[in-house]
Amino acid sequence: MCQLLGMNCATPTDITFSFRGFSQRAGITSDHSDGFGIAFFEDKACRLFVDNQSAVESPIAELVRNYPIKSRNVIAHIRKATQGKITLENSHPFVRELWGRQWIFAHNGDLYDFQPRLSGRFTPVGNTDSELAFCYLLDKFVEKFGYHEPSLKEIFAVLHEISPKIAEYGTFNFCLSNGQALFSYATTKLHWLVREYPFQHAKLIDLDVDIDFSEVTTPEDRVAVITTEPLTHNETWQAYRQGEMILFQHGQPIQRAMTVVARLQREAQDPSLKRITKADQY
Amino acid sequence: MCQLLGMNCATPTDITFSFRGFSQRAGITSDHSDGFGIAFFEDKACRLFVDNQSAVESPIAELVRNYPIKSRNVIAHIRKATQGKITLENSHPFVRELWGRQWIFAHNGDLYDFQPRLSGRFTPVGNTDSELAFCYLLDKFVEKFGYHEPSLKEIFAVLHEISPKIAEYGTFNFCLSNGQALFSYATTKLHWLVREYPFQHAKLIDLDVDIDFSEVTTPEDRVAVITTEPLTHNETWQAYRQGEMILFQHGQPIQRAMTVVARLQREAQDPSLKRITKADQY
Repeated sequence: MCQLLGMNCATPTDITFSFRGFSQRAGITSDHSDGFGIAFFEDKACRLFVDNQSAVESPIAELVRNYPIKSRNVIAHIRKATQGKITLENSHPFVRELWGRQWIFAHNGDLYDFQPRLSGRFTPVGNTDSELAFCYLLDKFVEKFGYHEPSLKEIFAVLHEISPKIAEYGTFNFCLSNGQALFSYATTKLHWLVREYPFQHAKLIDLDVDIDFSEVTTPEDRVAVITTEPLTHNETWQAYRQGEMILFQHGQPIQRAMTVVARLQREAQDPSLKRITKADQY
Repeated sequence: MCQLLGMNCATPTDITFSFRGFSQRAGITSDHSDGFGIAFFEDKACRLFVDNQSAVESPIAELVRNYPIKSRNVIAHIRKATQGKITLENSHPFVRELWGRQWIFAHNGDLYDFQPRLSGRFTPVGNTDSELAFCYLLDKFVEKFGYHEPSLKEIFAVLHEISPKIAEYGTFNFCLSNGQALFSYATTKLHWLVREYPFQHAKLIDLDVDIDFSEVTTPEDRVAVITTEPLTHNETWQAYRQGEMILFQHGQPIQRAMTVVARLQREAQDPSLKRITKADQY
């Protein structure tokens, strides 16, 4: 299992405040210490930093906490290994190029007996269920649209169709971005908020650090933050509903939809069907 | 234009010594200050650090100089922009996944009027001739082998056939690695050496730093270094011949072959045919 952090912004913004709190969970306020990764988009390109050291100890995480890289779309991940070894190739986020854009994906959850047939167009480098799901999603994009880049709305429609099918195999919370927007989906746990004018004061939960955003922002700024567990005490985080998909662009939700995960419905009706997994214990 | 640095090793080795000298050329001993990048393989996965700041000023380059990441295959690049803007998406090395491995490519040179037809399987994210050539090479791999991973020897054969054709369009010095081995090719300038037992003393050209490799190595170590311009004073660097391709594995050349670049032959016979380009001046 692991924790996710996503950020989608109207103007290029640095994530140092949120990442400082989030990375504490890699060994200090929580035990997600089996590697970390963070990807920053700058237009179509992206910088991806991964390390199989924890985000507390890694010199690369230290750089990220101190080097304010400004980006409109960021996805970060801290890992507690449940499937796949602690190696670099199993560190999220994962990256692939499609339609002349980099695509970045990070997953929270475990998928069991998920063995889809892949075309070969996208092949996992490591051996996680997560990278396999990412390759499968991209395969479905190509199957649907070929090599002609579709609109965000069209991509949302495919994700809305495929994601609940993958979620039949287990917990499937994810963040996905191509640098234009950030797609997010939750079957168990994910939270979000939007910081916008008039900006407020915020205080991290995981670290004794606070910030007055009104001092470091302009009225044009707007930032959506997506995270497994809320990062701050005094802001209103909204929980995703089971099966909810939200597309963020320009720092706000631009499309929201529910999906039906049949397994979750069956389990709600008869809790004895629920498979208790290691993943559920975290 | 730009400069290249490649390293292929028998055992995981850090590149800090060579990178310290190499990165001086990004503004101090030379003017290759329009971005830098470096990729480190760890088995099939790789870490790619890129920045559109110079390798002298970038905090990411500072991290690389001080964090000894051990790797068997490394490719680094410092850029002096001649084609494409100074943006992150134009920073080498470039990365793509094929056959469940990451592939890393960096190019030194300029290609003119090089407009190959691509399948769509690999599409440039930026607008450099270099990334286009990389996508074209990978397209040719898939055209030849489909989605079944070939041997290094088979890949060498395709590169040997295609590279001189691309070199018809200009200068084509490159390093390419999939984490198993490092392919290199030169039409104008590239040098290499192998450091192995008994290890010697080496002194950087670009910085007043020297090292006695015998103190920091074991007899099992062996390291091939590939670079545009020699990095050290007191080692014997071998220059690539025009059109030479060398495949390095386990820290030594395992396959070498010459290619015939028809344009270079014509220019040798009649120097007035040679197009003087900005690239040639660096």
